[in-house]
Amino acid sequence: MADKSYDVVGIGNAIVDIIARCDEGFLTKHDLDKGFMRLIDAGEAARLYEEMGPAIERSGGSVANSIAGLASFGTTCGFIGRVAADQFGGIFRHDIRSLGVAFNSEPAMDGAPTARCLILVTPDGERTMNTFLGASVDFAPADLDPDMIAASRIVYLEGYLFDREHAKAAFREAARIAKEAGAKVALSLSDAFCVDRHREDFGNFIRNDADILFANEKEITTLYQVNSFAEAAATVRHECELAVLTRSEEGSMIVASGDTIEVAPEKVPEVVDVTGAGDLYAAGFLYGLTRGAPLAVCGRIGSLAAAEIISHIGARPEMSLRDLAKRAGLVN
Amino acid sequence: MADKSYDVVGIGNAIVDIIARCDEGFLTKHDLDKGFMRLIDAGEAARLYEEMGPAIERSGGSVANSIAGLASFGTTCGFIGRVAADQFGGIFRHDIRSLGVAFNSEPAMDGAPTARCLILVTPDGERTMNTFLGASVDFAPADLDPDMIAASRIVYLEGYLFDREHAKAAFREAARIAKEAGAKVALSLSDAFCVDRHREDFGNFIRNDADILFANEKEITTLYQVNSFAEAAATVRHECELAVLTRSEEGSMIVASGDTIEVAPEKVPEVVDVTGAGDLYAAGFLYGLTRGAPLAVCGRIGSLAAAEIISHIGARPEMSLRDLAKRAGLVN
Repeated sequence: MADKSYDVVGIGNAIVDIIARCDEGFLTKHDLDKGFMRLIDAGEAARLYEEMGPAIERSGGSVANSIAGLASFGTTCGFIGRVAADQFGGIFRHDIRSLGVAFNSEPAMDGAPTARCLILVTPDGERTMNTFLGASVDFAPADLDPDMIAASRIVYLEGYLFDREHAKAAFREAARIAKEAGAKVALSLSDAFCVDRHREDFGNFIRNDADILFANEKEITTLYQVNSFAEAAATVRHECELAVLTRSEEGSMIVASGDTIEVAPEKVPEVVDVTGAGDLYAAGFLYGLTRGAPLAVCGRIGSLAAAEIISHIGARPEMSLRDLAKRAGLVN
Repeated sequence: MADKSYDVVGIGNAIVDIIARCDEGFLTKHDLDKGFMRLIDAGEAARLYEEMGPAIERSGGSVANSIAGLASFGTTCGFIGRVAADQFGGIFRHDIRSLGVAFNSEPAMDGAPTARCLILVTPDGERTMNTFLGASVDFAPADLDPDMIAASRIVYLEGYLFDREHAKAAFREAARIAKEAGAKVALSLSDAFCVDRHREDFGNFIRNDADILFANEKEITTLYQVNSFAEAAATVRHECELAVLTRSEEGSMIVASGDTIEVAPEKVPEVVDVTGAGDLYAAGFLYGLTRGAPLAVCGRIGSLAAAEIISHIGARPEMSLRDLAKRAGLVN
């Protein structure tokens, strides 16, 4: 096995979030489904931005958020994502590196600008996301960093990227490199609509390439086109070595070969912003795995990290998750 | 007198703030004076950014913050500032326009990028600012919008811009246009170091061009090279029609020709972030002036707006200042 310099290497969209408040009427006017993510093109991004209120910008991206969480736990991480040579690309690179995450992806010198996600926060704390994938949409096998992948213990792949054929090819290549180097392959389903668009490819990838699957209830039932969570859990057991299914306030379920473990959610005084809950749950879970914790403990660390993230605005941790896990007695 | 479409038009630096937390040791290591603003060049900006923690970006700029506040009071405003044709320029333009502020400055197609301010927030809530002026540094008479200036009742100028000769020339030209159109000229001293560098020019501008002066204690004592606030107040009385002097937690003093009015500060439960206190005080004061309020009431509205801004992170209001002033019974 190659030298394992990284606990986890993530591959995903490199996105700058643009966050503004809006009222319910704004969503209605623009025909936006509250709480969901949709993909938009450059023209739509410009039109929507024009009508949005004053905004703040911060780094985002689903697996990038997970990697930021893993760094906060004190693990050694890397991230692979495609940015352009522009100011948003500079923001993304700065933020992820400043967390101690290795990020060596060279910015693309031409083509679309760095991805951005226009996020509308309604008074109830829900977020409605409009993603212009920009440079991220062209993610291809050439964007992989084979040495970084080979040097990782777990490679964590973002399902959102599965919308394009060259990105799918990149994922299969990443999985091949990982396997050869003795690394585990983890996949997040990311989005029920994306799962619906690429059901067969997701199914094949999970069966043939992924060792660990992260999905929420909506995503896993959509994947297997079943009506109940129980059916989905029963199905995934035969498809994947380890599936981790999250259910918002109902906690999570870990489905391993012979085992089913229910994990209670962590209580939070006030849910301020649910974005990133899944991303940070995955961070905590993977952290536990890299430390050899029992699966039930991995789940509890995941719940803990998710609870931290939904207690404040933004999908990146605001305190040391390692300290949090220590205080909870979940790690040494 | 020309048609007055605008209550207030501001002219200042168009800056995107990049805000990150740091510990005291970071300031020491980089030899930064806590609580102060300094100007840095592109190289220094790149070096410092490299070492900063993960950041968020939001629009800033001293007079731009005041104009954002004035918009929140429901006044009609415009802003004139120099941005480049880049993503930060796009952020600045979007944010100020989304507040309902007229901003017609065309982005500069070449030269330096849009200004940014690297802001380090220490655990005590103090902010240390490192400004790379970029495109703003070339502000010149050609960047003025004479029609907008002529159509305003008050033109509010940012002292920070006074560091360059072509910006000084632009200010004198703006004052000339304003006078001719029957508009008042207000000036913020902005920064004691800048005052120290350009004492004579500031003195002349205040004496010859400005009708209203905003300054804090440090700036006004630096300007007149006196040891006490009382001496500075006595001096400025003969220099300017109306001087508004702020003293942080000691409130403010309004020095008019025959009058001296002391204004108590507004109490706040917790001071979270002092940035923008002066900018928002000026917004409240100018709002009162445009509504014909007595000077003492103008001061109280200023204190109210300053109190709102220091109760949260960031120098732009998070609630309607008009509602706040109404609830306090200071406006109809």
